[in-house]
Amino acid sequence: MFGKIALEECWTIQEELANNDPGKFVAAGTGSRLTNELLDIHGTRLKQMDENNVDFMVLSFNSPGCQGISDKPQAEAQATLANDRMEAEVMKAPNRFAAFAALSMHDPAQAAAELRRCMTEKKGFVGVLLNDYQSCGEDGNGMLYYDQPEYDVFWQAANDLEAPVYMHPRPSNKLIHKLMWDGRPWLDFSALGYADRLNMHILGIVTNGVLDRFPKVKMIFGHMGEHIPYDIYRIDHKLDRSRFPNMPMRKDKLVRDYFGEQLFITTSGHFSTPALMCAMGEVGVQSIMFSIDYPFESIPNACAWWDEHVSASVNQHDYTNMGRNNVLKIIPRLTEEPHNLKAMTPQECRVGGLAVNQGEVCYGLYNKSWNKREIKIVPS
Amino acid sequence: MFGKIALEECWTIQEELANNDPGKFVAAGTGSRLTNELLDIHGTRLKQMDENNVDFMVLSFNSPGCQGISDKPQAEAQATLANDRMEAEVMKAPNRFAAFAALSMHDPAQAAAELRRCMTEKKGFVGVLLNDYQSCGEDGNGMLYYDQPEYDVFWQAANDLEAPVYMHPRPSNKLIHKLMWDGRPWLDFSALGYADRLNMHILGIVTNGVLDRFPKVKMIFGHMGEHIPYDIYRIDHKLDRSRFPNMPMRKDKLVRDYFGEQLFITTSGHFSTPALMCAMGEVGVQSIMFSIDYPFESIPNACAWWDEHVSASVNQHDYTNMGRNNVLKIIPRLTEEPHNLKAMTPQECRVGGLAVNQGEVCYGLYNKSWNKREIKIVPS
Amino acid sequence: MFGKIALEECWTIQEELANNDPGKFVAAGTGSRLTNELLDIHGTRLKQMDENNVDFMVLSFNSPGCQGISDKPQAEAQATLANDRMEAEVMKAPNRFAAFAALSMHDPAQAAAELRRCMTEKKGFVGVLLNDYQSCGEDGNGMLYYDQPEYDVFWQAANDLEAPVYMHPRPSNKLIHKLMWDGRPWLDFSALGYADRLNMHILGIVTNGVLDRFPKVKMIFGHMGEHIPYDIYRIDHKLDRSRFPNMPMRKDKLVRDYFGEQLFITTSGHFSTPALMCAMGEVGVQSIMFSIDYPFESIPNACAWWDEHVSASVNQHDYTNMGRNNVLKIIPRLTEEPHNLKAMTPQECRVGGLAVNQGEVCYGLYNKSWNKREIKIVPS
Amino acid sequence: MFGKIALEECWTIQEELANNDPGKFVAAGTGSRLTNELLDIHGTRLKQMDENNVDFMVLSFNSPGCQGISDKPQAEAQATLANDRMEAEVMKAPNRFAAFAALSMHDPAQAAAELRRCMTEKKGFVGVLLNDYQSCGEDGNGMLYYDQPEYDVFWQAANDLEAPVYMHPRPSNKLIHKLMWDGRPWLDFSALGYADRLNMHILGIVTNGVLDRFPKVKMIFGHMGEHIPYDIYRIDHKLDRSRFPNMPMRKDKLVRDYFGEQLFITTSGHFSTPALMCAMGEVGVQSIMFSIDYPFESIPNACAWWDEHVSASVNQHDYTNMGRNNVLKIIPRLTEEPHNLKAMTPQECRVGGLAVNQGEVCYGLYNKSWNKREIKIVPS
Repeated sequence: MFGKIALEECWTIQEELANNDPGKFVAAGTGSRLTNELLDIHGTRLKQMDENNVDFMVLSFNSPGCQGISDKPQAEAQATLANDRMEAEVMKAPNRFAAFAALSMHDPAQAAAELRRCMTEKKGFVGVLLNDYQSCGEDGNGMLYYDQPEYDVFWQAANDLEAPVYMHPRPSNKLIHKLMWDGRPWLDFSALGYADRLNMHILGIVTNGVLDRFPKVKMIFGHMGEHIPYDIYRIDHKLDRSRFPNMPMRKDKLVRDYFGEQLFITTSGHFSTPALMCAMGEVGVQSIMFSIDYPFESIPNACAWWDEHVSASVNQHDYTNMGRNNVLKIIPRLTEEPHNLKAMTPQECRVGGLAVNQGEVCYGLYNKSWNKREIKIVPS
Repeated sequence: MFGKIALEECWTIQEELANNDPGKFVAAGTGSRLTNELLDIHGTRLKQMDENNVDFMVLSFNSPGCQGISDKPQAEAQATLANDRMEAEVMKAPNRFAAFAALSMHDPAQAAAELRRCMTEKKGFVGVLLNDYQSCGEDGNGMLYYDQPEYDVFWQAANDLEAPVYMHPRPSNKLIHKLMWDGRPWLDFSALGYADRLNMHILGIVTNGVLDRFPKVKMIFGHMGEHIPYDIYRIDHKLDRSRFPNMPMRKDKLVRDYFGEQLFITTSGHFSTPALMCAMGEVGVQSIMFSIDYPFESIPNACAWWDEHVSASVNQHDYTNMGRNNVLKIIPRLTEEPHNLKAMTPQECRVGGLAVNQGEVCYGLYNKSWNKREIKIVPS
Repeated sequence: MFGKIALEECWTIQEELANNDPGKFVAAGTGSRLTNELLDIHGTRLKQMDENNVDFMVLSFNSPGCQGISDKPQAEAQATLANDRMEAEVMKAPNRFAAFAALSMHDPAQAAAELRRCMTEKKGFVGVLLNDYQSCGEDGNGMLYYDQPEYDVFWQAANDLEAPVYMHPRPSNKLIHKLMWDGRPWLDFSALGYADRLNMHILGIVTNGVLDRFPKVKMIFGHMGEHIPYDIYRIDHKLDRSRFPNMPMRKDKLVRDYFGEQLFITTSGHFSTPALMCAMGEVGVQSIMFSIDYPFESIPNACAWWDEHVSASVNQHDYTNMGRNNVLKIIPRLTEEPHNLKAMTPQECRVGGLAVNQGEVCYGLYNKSWNKREIKIVPS
Repeated sequence: MFGKIALEECWTIQEELANNDPGKFVAAGTGSRLTNELLDIHGTRLKQMDENNVDFMVLSFNSPGCQGISDKPQAEAQATLANDRMEAEVMKAPNRFAAFAALSMHDPAQAAAELRRCMTEKKGFVGVLLNDYQSCGEDGNGMLYYDQPEYDVFWQAANDLEAPVYMHPRPSNKLIHKLMWDGRPWLDFSALGYADRLNMHILGIVTNGVLDRFPKVKMIFGHMGEHIPYDIYRIDHKLDRSRFPNMPMRKDKLVRDYFGEQLFITTSGHFSTPALMCAMGEVGVQSIMFSIDYPFESIPNACAWWDEHVSASVNQHDYTNMGRNNVLKIIPRLTEEPHNLKAMTPQECRVGGLAVNQGEVCYGLYNKSWNKREIKIVPS
């Protein structure tokens, strides 16, 4: 599909590597590739975007980023540095990139101020990405959650600035790791623990009434919804108002009612067609956007899934909406200067049939060669 | 679901019963019920609409209607009579009913003129419904198909008047019945033959280029698409342009490309959830509308399927769009005088959770009684 | 997937080309390829089977074959010739090929005798394939359907010999073509007309009670079920016993009840994932088998769909059952001499993950290269 | 559906209420109903089973049960008491009930001995149910997980006795609650926290190689799989063997490979049709069994979902297998004395059509009344 937009795409800066170099924690022999790809924007990344028809990326600071810095001044300084650097990078090619701001969440008012700075004084920002809870305390084991009343000042700013808030996962701290994950450490990360923690935080924000108090806040989360769409029946069913009369969320709404209006998900890092189908059934096409999770996932692999698998399972309208057009409704700032993105029709996205010569379209041939197995060539 | 709109709903007039009384062909003991329900609009029908939250019906003249009258003057007179009667009935309750015009299709220019009369001189009409091919000839075995060039004058009128054309099935004539269906007559009707013939006619219209020449024409067909969505892959794949270079349809489009723009389907008479899911996958939510096929299907049964089964399988946004809101985009005349229909939110349709007291919503209880099995009560 | 078995795979003989050379009717420039591929078994066909991990093919005589020969002695002679040739070809590689017998259906008793000859005196046959109705009469416009009582002698033989009957489509005769398809000839063939006629014949056989009288008869049909799974709700709903009290089929069964026991479908020529999902919902995994429709479909393309698309949508158990193991239950003769096929586990089929070195398995990488887009390599 | 079997059905004893009375934690006004229903077996429970065609229940001791007792002797005594009581109750109606043993998991060898006692010296037991981790320590904040090597003695017993192990969720302890759930306590229970913790424990057992070392161990878990089926792609993808070379699980298998062979799920308490469809896609029909979660869910409501919603979305074979027959393959002891359960055909389960008079079957009528809306009456 031509024109794909991706939203959960990480980068980092040299100054962050001392704190946090993901390249140290991956499979032997792949770390330097990962570190290099995190640092790069306009080189390999852009080349692979071109090769795989990714039109646009919204970039964000690598997890846990400022959320992993338990020292308040250091976290705030890192956010400012990251955002200034990001602005500079995005503005080199604003027709291909935008950014989600990085924030220290130690002080909600400071977070609000930095978000305002990014959204009003800079040109490349279209929202904010938070890496789950904010670490704090001398031992780094403190955890600040944004569903508590003191964070209303932050949500007020996101609401007023119409800045979508992307909630991204992160590893557990040492205390929780020791209590729960120690005998099965491989599960603490992206396979399971990430989602198990982040879905609590997201639902904490929803059920504590943040979306009701700030109706222009839109929250986005990846990995096909951090388990929530699959369990949305049970979540709503078990949040029984008569059992929990003090739960602040509006009593005349269900969690499912926020999807498509204030809650949205992306496909980042979970390239499962049955899971996508389930999400389409439970939260609807209008709640779902394509994303990759680069460089923790490969651009070609994510795009092979989207271009070759999903295209075979979803009609062209829903498909191009999830692959591109939904983003422009959810983050309308992308349609303005300096990004100027436009909606595309299925035909403009080259979806539905192989173009052959003289404007003719064929369908259902996976390649132009009868007797040889090739990948589907996107028509040109 | 509150606010449902239904589009393939039959009625007839006393004068037609001599030609065509479906009550004679149904199960023993049910014929008079059927005949009476066909003749009725504001009595049992409206009562059941109220009981089952059907907000609105677009009525049409019972199949085969004028298409079954092989004598041209008689067919034309019957169309005029039917349309005049229909206008009178609709205008008794235009907030609950509209009509699709009946037409004789012997003479395309006359058909165009009668359609123009209905759409411009009357108030209750929002389109036209044709019952497959027009019978003609002295023995009644002639078959006129509207995919031939001489019908362009009719399609031009439908295009200019922005009158959607609902294609409805009908029985075969005596010759075809004898040649193909004689040893298995029970298959000639709604179980199979209806769709097997109508899908040919529909695809004839598409592949002969009618939708290309008349881009404002919208064609609707029922019974979950007369087999077409399930086979749309194979249809497009096998209509190979290099094999059929003279096929008039645009060479840069596939049949699937017309869905959601010029082709639409309804659920009338095919209350299958797996078939609906397949149609959603292949032709998309924006191409699908709820309908009943009353009185050949029961209003309570159709609504039990929609209200209780489909609601459990589809998110509330897509569900209310298919149940109501899509119709208003596809037939915008319904939003104007004298019908004045408005789009409704899922919450206005009472979708998603049982309202309990004081504005609280519960979810996943199928009834308010813990220990007794009842149907789900729509909240009030 | 390793170990795939395909069931609707055509071949022909030089002597048939004068009657029926499909190469004359396809896209310009592709005819000689098609003719050559129909004549070939152990050359290109086997090479492509190897390249695409098709373990086994059941071959059948090209449509319409003997059904298209309206002269009885000529049709019978052609069947005998075809079957003798086929036996010889299959026995060159019985670990890779078996055959469905070709039959003239002019005389049911003769058909039964020829089927008996193939199933008892020869070694390579595992059932029979019939190309819809038998043409007859001097003008070739006669149509014999096997749902009539005089064909019980044939069904008795199929029952006693436990020979599955594959029902394959064919073009219409000249009379029906002129009456129905003349203004839209491109629809008469595989895009639509094939299924529209064959589904009538299949349901004629079922509703006339053939499967009840001959409970060991198994009927198979391709193209994802010739529209029947999508409409199975409506078919059963509309075959109302009180309306059709004389329909011979058992009154305590529905058409859907025969699926998985006496009715089975294949995927031949309809590589649609949403249609497959619908069929899985309505008729169940146990009723579905992979097939290609070679050489009217390309082996690499059919296998690309199965290996790369379907594998991403279906769990490995159901997937390997539909791709291989179901066939061995439905046609157990394939597990005996001289074919000796065995069931395979998902792991033996190399399904679920990419084998990397030293027995390690990876999952969700579409290729081994991080930065390059390649097709998925089946692990070796 | 007639003949349904349910597997996650709780009971308790008077002696346990002091520790753990769930009736204290539910919605105001419903606690005494819950407590009474937990204590009852042969009264209301059996009556509702009869009214809703639940043929059989496997009972288990209410969560957290012995896992919630941090004092070892007390936990062991409670298990023995519960099991003795359970045996007596089950043997009053072994054609309707069986039991999963309760165990203290403080000492794996003692757990193994008690399991052996239940499975060999008693007649009513068919497996064991564990309520997530075992609380221990003076403050009750210790957590014992069964994926550690010291539990091999327990798994050996389960393997040798062919006793399936049902993994059931439980609340968090005070320490974890305070660290993670304190600002959002309503999420700690069945809406989210239950699954978020239990999926870690289940995957800990799988990835620590327990199923490899004990290949006859079958593990069952409810609530549509505690989020795992939806995320199975990502779980397998992210458990990258080169990143986690010391993860004990077999390197040539994926987590998904254990489903249908050693891992099974039930529908208890998660009556979502889209989630069921997703699970069918990812882990397959052969891995899924109906269950209720009584009395935390209502029997009529669970059965309304299964009988009226799911039946409309799944073919009759898969449906009756998930509703009944799968259980008999997964727990074959149920087919022996004193339970003697037998597999049933769809027709015996009265699935597929309404029986009308004289053995006739109708389809697609949701009730026998044309003009009135009633629940579907299971035919008698």
